[in-house]
Amino acid sequence: MTSIGIFGSMGRMGLAIAEIAPELGAPVAGGCDMSGDPNELARKSDTLVDFSAPAALEAHLAAARAAGTPIMIGTTGLGARHHAMIDEAARDIAVLQTGNTSLGIGLLSHLVREAAARLGADWDIEIVEMHHRNKADAPSGTALMLGEAAAQGIGTTLSEAGVQGRAGLTGPRAAGTIGMAALRGGSVVGDHSVIFATAGERIEFTHRADDRAIFARGAVRAALWLAGRAPGRYTMDQVLGV
Amino acid sequence: MTSIGIFGSMGRMGLAIAEIAPELGAPVAGGCDMSGDPNELARKSDTLVDFSAPAALEAHLAAARAAGTPIMIGTTGLGARHHAMIDEAARDIAVLQTGNTSLGIGLLSHLVREAAARLGADWDIEIVEMHHRNKADAPSGTALMLGEAAAQGIGTTLSEAGVQGRAGLTGPRAAGTIGMAALRGGSVVGDHSVIFATAGERIEFTHRADDRAIFARGAVRAALWLAGRAPGRYTMDQVLGV
Amino acid sequence: MTSIGIFGSMGRMGLAIAEIAPELGAPVAGGCDMSGDPNELARKSDTLVDFSAPAALEAHLAAARAAGTPIMIGTTGLGARHHAMIDEAARDIAVLQTGNTSLGIGLLSHLVREAAARLGADWDIEIVEMHHRNKADAPSGTALMLGEAAAQGIGTTLSEAGVQGRAGLTGPRAAGTIGMAALRGGSVVGDHSVIFATAGERIEFTHRADDRAIFARGAVRAALWLAGRAPGRYTMDQVLGV
Amino acid sequence: MTSIGIFGSMGRMGLAIAEIAPELGAPVAGGCDMSGDPNELARKSDTLVDFSAPAALEAHLAAARAAGTPIMIGTTGLGARHHAMIDEAARDIAVLQTGNTSLGIGLLSHLVREAAARLGADWDIEIVEMHHRNKADAPSGTALMLGEAAAQGIGTTLSEAGVQGRAGLTGPRAAGTIGMAALRGGSVVGDHSVIFATAGERIEFTHRADDRAIFARGAVRAALWLAGRAPGRYTMDQVLGV
Repeated sequence: MTSIGIFGSMGRMGLAIAEIAPELGAPVAGGCDMSGDPNELARKSDTLVDFSAPAALEAHLAAARAAGTPIMIGTTGLGARHHAMIDEAARDIAVLQTGNTSLGIGLLSHLVREAAARLGADWDIEIVEMHHRNKADAPSGTALMLGEAAAQGIGTTLSEAGVQGRAGLTGPRAAGTIGMAALRGGSVVGDHSVIFATAGERIEFTHRADDRAIFARGAVRAALWLAGRAPGRYTMDQVLGV
Repeated sequence: MTSIGIFGSMGRMGLAIAEIAPELGAPVAGGCDMSGDPNELARKSDTLVDFSAPAALEAHLAAARAAGTPIMIGTTGLGARHHAMIDEAARDIAVLQTGNTSLGIGLLSHLVREAAARLGADWDIEIVEMHHRNKADAPSGTALMLGEAAAQGIGTTLSEAGVQGRAGLTGPRAAGTIGMAALRGGSVVGDHSVIFATAGERIEFTHRADDRAIFARGAVRAALWLAGRAPGRYTMDQVLGV
Repeated sequence: MTSIGIFGSMGRMGLAIAEIAPELGAPVAGGCDMSGDPNELARKSDTLVDFSAPAALEAHLAAARAAGTPIMIGTTGLGARHHAMIDEAARDIAVLQTGNTSLGIGLLSHLVREAAARLGADWDIEIVEMHHRNKADAPSGTALMLGEAAAQGIGTTLSEAGVQGRAGLTGPRAAGTIGMAALRGGSVVGDHSVIFATAGERIEFTHRADDRAIFARGAVRAALWLAGRAPGRYTMDQVLGV
Repeated sequence: MTSIGIFGSMGRMGLAIAEIAPELGAPVAGGCDMSGDPNELARKSDTLVDFSAPAALEAHLAAARAAGTPIMIGTTGLGARHHAMIDEAARDIAVLQTGNTSLGIGLLSHLVREAAARLGADWDIEIVEMHHRNKADAPSGTALMLGEAAAQGIGTTLSEAGVQGRAGLTGPRAAGTIGMAALRGGSVVGDHSVIFATAGERIEFTHRADDRAIFARGAVRAALWLAGRAPGRYTMDQVLGV
């Protein structure tokens, strides 16, 4: 059995991972949160997950490298500097960083990229998401990830093609754009739809998350998949085999 | 049989009404468009529809009043001045003015108002619509009508409660607001959803228009309903009996 | 403050009610499950809920009557004999029995009845629901309740109008029928859609339950609404004020 | 420019193809329906479409072979005997036979197969479709095609895994099955959803056809794609490049 160590073990995701890992056959080797020795945790774990804070990433990567233990990073708010650290660590250990650990979203993202590439320029792309009333930013990080996948499919980037907050006298829709809309209300965990529309037909890809446990489950799956891999920087697409 | 006269007979809606009225048992008495005598048309018709232009409204109302013929007005872009004319005409003849003649939208609007009133303050309200790529304004007039109905239900107005184009660091959703989002693409005739969301559950009301003929059909039904009514200004709710 | 007593306190719903009642301002007076004295519980409670078993209903109603305490009954599997007991008890105390305590479903049921009555015979009615993979019967009790509401709206009953499991060479749809379809999969708590479709347009009413707590919350609301009411048999429509 | 010849030119699809082909840059070389000489049509066309009847297929294939003209076959109701004829003809000319010429459905079918293969056994698969009230069979041919694609993805066939018309005391959902449900009402051209559901999340793939012209457009695209191809039997997946 592959044991899992948890950086950020007292956070919402850390606690969820501690609960779900044994159900997936992975004993928890231990956890660190603010206090605790990262090096010791890395040494006694077969694989690591990190859902802590950007400021802690450098120490966690150093510990993982020193111990030769792979690490799955789900910490949000990373900048260019952090990505450079991850690339550097990936020379010695297996690393996977992602903004969304749901396997369903991972697959959807792949299929959206493929659909955008195949359908061609006469299909308009729109993305709409709904989250609970307390979410403070729009659109969601996952919607941006799906938008980026669609943009790649049509050979552009979301910063080029994205159109947010359509309202007022907009004029006809500009070809090649990707519309983004955000709904907020109640306790919705997270719904995302990517809509492709052309003359006379539409294709809609929808993901509905009913339970935050899916993110913990995906993180554990990714961490287990990393165990025993050669050094390098991996993606959720590879975990999914797509 | 009740015959129907068409102001704006060569426009998209006028042509659709001419085609559909006989199927609903209403012979077309005639039509006027730019040219033609409004008074003669009003005299030979049992009921009238008007889908022309705001500038022509005054002459059409005068003709309807002189002949004592009821009139259903679907012309868009009316201002306060036009509404005053309509109120004035309603002293002598039966008049109905609406921005949306679909019976389905009429019913939905009524039910949304009732749901908003019954569900109470802990249910957030969001409206999302999708239309074809050539629509030049957002949100749609029908979305605004549904938003107004929801606002009435919670004792406010859409200009007070409406939030359009949510994007960026929005902070948590403000209680009592009504979110509005617009999607554009392909040839979609018009889809509208009003979503009520609270802790643990959601109710969604969706209308899908697949064919513009529904607007012509509703206009004919409303015009036939007006025939023989006492003078006054009527609404689609009354045609529906709600 | 109105205190609540729970029959069936160790069942899934009983436990959920015990957790949620204090959040809604209702202290838990106590609970009975298999063991415990129903009469004592009824005497010390201001209002009662019963989510136990049909066989226990007679004793619970007797205790409520003897103490003069109102009772909300959510026990499933009741027969004609149990309904006769409830009617009898309603001569002395306030009683409310329902198969679904969600306020959202209660409102939807009311609106579906009204829509069916207003839209008329040219609108076909279809109901589709989705539940988790372990649900052993189809369609769900809630789908049947919504189907009955739709049937009432068009002046018939679901046993007359309902069509289940459409498959094979069915021929054209018979007018006046109500189609019912059931989907099963994953951990879906419960989604229900009632679709009205006519030439060129559709209206869809959808309820999505994301969390079983909504049923406990509605049960507590109904029990609190009963406190202090005159004897009689009440309905969720009355709790909702529709 | 590539000219197109139409077998079944007076049928609903034949007429739609004649209207749409010139818009897509393909002049209509001519058409045959019951009467007319198939050989002459095949000789003067650069590519052929056939939306006639199974009984006419043999003569049409013979004409196409004699003239060396590729043929796209959309005729429905073909049996094993017809497929053998098609395979035989594909030794000499390029042939493509499909039950659904919509490019959107073609892509969806491919993505559903891939999703089923990647998501694994813990994701339940359900398919629901809606068509107009006059459709006489259920589920639709397209739903069966999507079901077959899903079945291939999980390594089985729809005749093994398909479950239709779920109703009554069904017991828990059997693992590895594919549920199929059919809704009927109004004038719906054709909506199809394939739902993958596991613990805590769902992915839904939906196709909405608003206009039958999409099938004519896809047929013309496929016929044009065939022009100049080497002999062989091709599929819509190849037209789409997936």
